[in-house]
Amino acid sequence: MYRKELKVLDCTIRDGGLINNYHFTDDFVKAIYQATCKAGVDIMEIGKKLSESDEYTREKYGKWNFCDEDDIKAVVDSYDGETRPLLAVMFDVGRVDVSSMLPADESVIDMVRTACYVPDIDKGLDLVKRTKDLGYMTAINIMACSAAIKTDLIEGLQQINETPEVDYLYLVDSYGAFYSEQVTSYIKLYKEHAPKKELGFHAHNNQQLAFSNTQQAIIDGVNMLDATVNGMGRGAGNCNLELLLNFLKNPKFTSRPLYKVIQDHVVALRKEIEWGFNDIYGISGHLNRHPRNAMKQRANSKIKDNCYDFLLEATSEMA
Amino acid sequence: MYRKELKVLDCTIRDGGLINNYHFTDDFVKAIYQATCKAGVDIMEIGKKLSESDEYTREKYGKWNFCDEDDIKAVVDSYDGETRPLLAVMFDVGRVDVSSMLPADESVIDMVRTACYVPDIDKGLDLVKRTKDLGYMTAINIMACSAAIKTDLIEGLQQINETPEVDYLYLVDSYGAFYSEQVTSYIKLYKEHAPKKELGFHAHNNQQLAFSNTQQAIIDGVNMLDATVNGMGRGAGNCNLELLLNFLKNPKFTSRPLYKVIQDHVVALRKEIEWGFNDIYGISGHLNRHPRNAMKQRANSKIKDNCYDFLLEATSEMA
Repeated sequence: MYRKELKVLDCTIRDGGLINNYHFTDDFVKAIYQATCKAGVDIMEIGKKLSESDEYTREKYGKWNFCDEDDIKAVVDSYDGETRPLLAVMFDVGRVDVSSMLPADESVIDMVRTACYVPDIDKGLDLVKRTKDLGYMTAINIMACSAAIKTDLIEGLQQINETPEVDYLYLVDSYGAFYSEQVTSYIKLYKEHAPKKELGFHAHNNQQLAFSNTQQAIIDGVNMLDATVNGMGRGAGNCNLELLLNFLKNPKFTSRPLYKVIQDHVVALRKEIEWGFNDIYGISGHLNRHPRNAMKQRANSKIKDNCYDFLLEATSEMA
Repeated sequence: MYRKELKVLDCTIRDGGLINNYHFTDDFVKAIYQATCKAGVDIMEIGKKLSESDEYTREKYGKWNFCDEDDIKAVVDSYDGETRPLLAVMFDVGRVDVSSMLPADESVIDMVRTACYVPDIDKGLDLVKRTKDLGYMTAINIMACSAAIKTDLIEGLQQINETPEVDYLYLVDSYGAFYSEQVTSYIKLYKEHAPKKELGFHAHNNQQLAFSNTQQAIIDGVNMLDATVNGMGRGAGNCNLELLLNFLKNPKFTSRPLYKVIQDHVVALRKEIEWGFNDIYGISGHLNRHPRNAMKQRANSKIKDNCYDFLLEATSEMA
């Protein structure tokens, strides 16, 4: 599959940080950054940009929850090649302070993606407008749309369509619940109600469909694709970046530096933290549930493989 | 997805046995059989039916490489429910003795699937004819078609089309090399050159696409689908049966007994033998290679995670 408009966004650190509260070593973050540079990735999302407080500290929550300019610069300066991705950070509605941000032309950050649930789209759009006023590329990522009431979602899409400050509108399969037919159906809905917007897609791998659903999104006309090195990300993880670049065949991309960073850095991390498909995430995705219960069970070594018990408990709620 | 013609074939023991030389405990095989009964699976392939010899013994190669009638009966008799799958065995060209088989109406076996590479299609068809003469349902599984010379493949398809003894013609992605577009393209080719045949599809999960490619095969009109409990199978394994039944939504199927057998029996086996996606199988699939080199590297604990080294070695052959 080759289409020159296709762009790839690596969110290894940002989505992976949800597993370990962003406690990556500096070496690890630099290694991922350098690999995305060499692989030809278009954008790298390096973390969240939330507000620090007495309760919400860098020590406890990790520096990549806050993405200070100097921390990012140290990563950027660790590489001396020419080709580099743009850098993105993520906003969570209600946990950010836009006034603390530099104007884009003074910042090492290029793009701000605002994540929000459907009921918070107004708040999300307010953040998008304010980041656009500062000169950043913007995106709004509507989370958990598979569990949203459709009329509310459509209203939100129409608002987004009428907000010129939104550069990218993301379809996000937060629960890993989509089959390819749902990808197609939601993209059709997004295009119908937000025809002015360029679309992005963010998958989760609960049913081993993150990569294939990303392919389906490409087929359906989406041009901005999220992926992570080795699929690292919360719960079942994301679309594997190396598999995606292999698929895309665009000569600007190469998966080789990604396999190098996996061998040199990611394999060791896999022994400390877990991500990726397993039976329990598969059930959670099929049932269109938030992954929190599945993650809780996976964190308990006594019951982590009891997929049948998980299924019984999850479906007993439906009785 | 619901279509009443869709049939599901479980090949957990047959494909999984390629990992451990068919050294499953009797309890394990019975548990898988009982789970397929309760799940409503249409056909279960319980092993290979090869010829014993002084070198090729049951002790060394496991009873499910030979599938004696009495061994199968012991499994069948372990369950007293009414709904049961038909039972299939697999033939490998050059390693079977048809004259040792009972007529189908005296056998507990219902179906014989003959596996062959493209150059052996003549030999495969000879076996198909002889098993059909004995009264069995038949299938021919053309292996590694992704690496076959297309004109040879087309000639083979045309021969198969003119062989009325073939009930099912299988598209097999032996190397896990297909994206959905290749599934579609090969199915079109198979339909064009063997229009009289009902088609089956057998996937491998090298690129995390076994399940999604099976969905694509359904969309493209294939009605016989292979899958295995927990995706167990050689190398990267197969399409996960439980995910597939969740997708199919046909009320005759239920995934619940599969999650029970995974929790009670498969989880323990996963600690002894390995199957499923990893980076090295991903590279092997992308490069359209036989999985033998990837399996060899995965079997060496010192280098099993060295995906970059594997990539370098695999692609150096292309220089």
